[in-house]
Amino acid sequence: MFNKILIANRGEIAVRIIRACREMNIQTVAVYSEIDKEALHTQLADEAICIGPAPAKDSYLDIKKIISAAIVTGANAIHPGFGFLSENSKFAKVCEECNITFIGPTGDMMDRMGNKSKARETMVENNIPVVPGSEGAVANVEEAVKIAEEIGYPVIIKASAGGGGRGMRIANDSDELYNSYKTASAEAKSAFGDDTMYVEKYITNPRHIEFQILADNYGNTVHLGERDCSMQRRHQKVLEESPSAAITDELRKKMGEVAVKAAKAINYRNAGTVEFLLNDTGEFYFIEMNTRIQVEHPVTEMVTGIDLIKGQIQIANGDKLDYSQKDINIKGHAIELRINAENPSKGFRPSPGDISFLHMPSGKDIRVDSAIYCGYKIPPTYDSMIAKLIVFDKDRKSAIKKLNSAIGEFIVEGVDTNIDFQYELINDDSFIRGNYNTSFIEKFMER
Amino acid sequence: MFNKILIANRGEIAVRIIRACREMNIQTVAVYSEIDKEALHTQLADEAICIGPAPAKDSYLDIKKIISAAIVTGANAIHPGFGFLSENSKFAKVCEECNITFIGPTGDMMDRMGNKSKARETMVENNIPVVPGSEGAVANVEEAVKIAEEIGYPVIIKASAGGGGRGMRIANDSDELYNSYKTASAEAKSAFGDDTMYVEKYITNPRHIEFQILADNYGNTVHLGERDCSMQRRHQKVLEESPSAAITDELRKKMGEVAVKAAKAINYRNAGTVEFLLNDTGEFYFIEMNTRIQVEHPVTEMVTGIDLIKGQIQIANGDKLDYSQKDINIKGHAIELRINAENPSKGFRPSPGDISFLHMPSGKDIRVDSAIYCGYKIPPTYDSMIAKLIVFDKDRKSAIKKLNSAIGEFIVEGVDTNIDFQYELINDDSFIRGNYNTSFIEKFMER
Repeated sequence: MFNKILIANRGEIAVRIIRACREMNIQTVAVYSEIDKEALHTQLADEAICIGPAPAKDSYLDIKKIISAAIVTGANAIHPGFGFLSENSKFAKVCEECNITFIGPTGDMMDRMGNKSKARETMVENNIPVVPGSEGAVANVEEAVKIAEEIGYPVIIKASAGGGGRGMRIANDSDELYNSYKTASAEAKSAFGDDTMYVEKYITNPRHIEFQILADNYGNTVHLGERDCSMQRRHQKVLEESPSAAITDELRKKMGEVAVKAAKAINYRNAGTVEFLLNDTGEFYFIEMNTRIQVEHPVTEMVTGIDLIKGQIQIANGDKLDYSQKDINIKGHAIELRINAENPSKGFRPSPGDISFLHMPSGKDIRVDSAIYCGYKIPPTYDSMIAKLIVFDKDRKSAIKKLNSAIGEFIVEGVDTNIDFQYELINDDSFIRGNYNTSFIEKFMER
Repeated sequence: MFNKILIANRGEIAVRIIRACREMNIQTVAVYSEIDKEALHTQLADEAICIGPAPAKDSYLDIKKIISAAIVTGANAIHPGFGFLSENSKFAKVCEECNITFIGPTGDMMDRMGNKSKARETMVENNIPVVPGSEGAVANVEEAVKIAEEIGYPVIIKASAGGGGRGMRIANDSDELYNSYKTASAEAKSAFGDDTMYVEKYITNPRHIEFQILADNYGNTVHLGERDCSMQRRHQKVLEESPSAAITDELRKKMGEVAVKAAKAINYRNAGTVEFLLNDTGEFYFIEMNTRIQVEHPVTEMVTGIDLIKGQIQIANGDKLDYSQKDINIKGHAIELRINAENPSKGFRPSPGDISFLHMPSGKDIRVDSAIYCGYKIPPTYDSMIAKLIVFDKDRKSAIKKLNSAIGEFIVEGVDTNIDFQYELINDDSFIRGNYNTSFIEKFMER
């Protein structure tokens, strides 16, 4: 086993990884930016190396500095966490060249999933459902209509050069498509100087469902059930739970098998997440695979009992998975709330600053992953997430009750937080009924 | 279900009970002494009533004030926690007379177990092994020898009026007994003016093993496995774990059945703990039953998944246990460390005062039950226990590793604690091998 791991990250995930290493008797090296001198990960690691100024490009994203820190300290592996360099295939390759184990997939695997059109191709080749649509651009409106008839309405037409919703229209039938195509392509022409269009099936109010994968170097690939991450604000996840209220045992089995197949299609290894859109009639479509640990991994840990960070380290070390799919039981229900230092009533503006008082919930089956402490100064430089509150109980209803009690006990003074916002969210009738999708929060906020 | 519960306690157990109530949508009333105005339980409850000055006899032990607080606030049940009034049968009876549900057994059940000789009699009647010995006093040395031959050496002779080790001798054979009897009875005569002696089998280096019991009002009584509480300093438990390294599945089954039989012998209801001494050849002896929740209940919660405080409340409400013995599975391993504000190098002198900085461990399967926070002032009036650190892992070895990591992260500044002492304890070779008994800490400290 590795004797020393460098953690190329900060915040709660760095602390999470340090804790796993401590429990495995592995020495840890933290890297930190100048503004993170007092950060918990800096304090908690066995060694800590300053790698530059606060902006991430000068420190947490600087491959040379991080590799140097690993060499200087004699770390023989690097855990990238999430964000920063975690999906940077060049970084993974440089680690390999320097004989440092990158705790994750190879750079090639990342590339095969990181390039969306290449990933889509691979999935299509392996009979994994993707969102149906034109393969690339359509020549004209007639071809768009032809494809729409094949894949079924509603469809969405998008400008190839588009972005920010411009040059994009939803069409429910061919009349709408003729009209929309005209206006959207004109809009694209004037906005981007390019009226190339493509067509995709429009998934109405989908759920965002993702499957946790673990794969060793010996062809053993398992899934650890799903996470429902449909609670999103501007594509940022806000609350995650496992299992999903929308998934039956039968559908879990089916989607889980597809997720494993997706990972196997590229001989994936280590932890990864296969993301799907699920519509309200039970059809699901691969959208992408994240080739790293996710923020929301603790909900899976709680319903399976499996430590995913230790799993990553063991796999990177060349260990075999010592269980197979049939040994993995999803038991009970877990929900995670992301606690951010931000002001929801002011457009979720980040709220860095000094934490003057802090009390975090605790107790039976309540877990808080965080890197803050009383007196800690949240820097303005990084992500606003300051903690994750995760609860577990025997079923969804009990878990929601526990979450209510726990979040009511979460006190952060000195900065604004989204705690009250989250409290309202988990007390919404639709959420309580498990009836929500990716457009939920937008509507919730319009009320 | 009760709509409002008064918690007749303070500290971490009061917080623990409030959390259970919050998760069950039950309103809570805290009572607090003048010195506990800023205590966490006072802050966390829905209502809080001051019941008098700091000394327990004027507040937490004052039955009239507590009953008045319940009546004034309309609480229809009282949870006594542990310590204070939790084993006071008069309190349980007064609650009943006032139509307030006492969350625990009846006063009569308490009396039957609280009186040690009555409890011993009941156990003997029910063929439950007790420490063998003379029933009451022996007439002379010849009778003592006769009994010793029956029960087997070593035996211990004790002065009926004795205490503090005076008038007490261990004898390994009849010669020793003749001599010891003479000196011990002479010592008793001069020390207490009474040379009445009795004889008991001397249990060499026993383990303290206790079984958690839950019993409803309908005759359903189950055990939730054992806790090994042999780590004691002056009869105060320091560390508890479940399962015990000394208990095989077979012995667990046998002792568990005896524990259930002991509870059934008095038609016990609610949560209780049957305590045994276990010798190194696998014989065990009932010593007493605690008719309340125990400090160390979380280790049982972690290996069974069952919430004992909610169980107590449900049983007191008249609910039936919705599981039976065969549904209870002991899974994995849990260890609890008691964190006290005290100075081990100064005879464990209590160390009250201001907590100037606090960081408590957290993460996967790590639980801290406490009532302290950054800036809290520990009063000098009560027990020195400020937190319980409980960890869970798949087996004992992994749990010890996790405990090492977690306690290494526990930082309390401003007062002395036993954190370093506990750290040394869990790194002792004998502890790591699971080889310890009630005399361990005494020897450990002599080194």
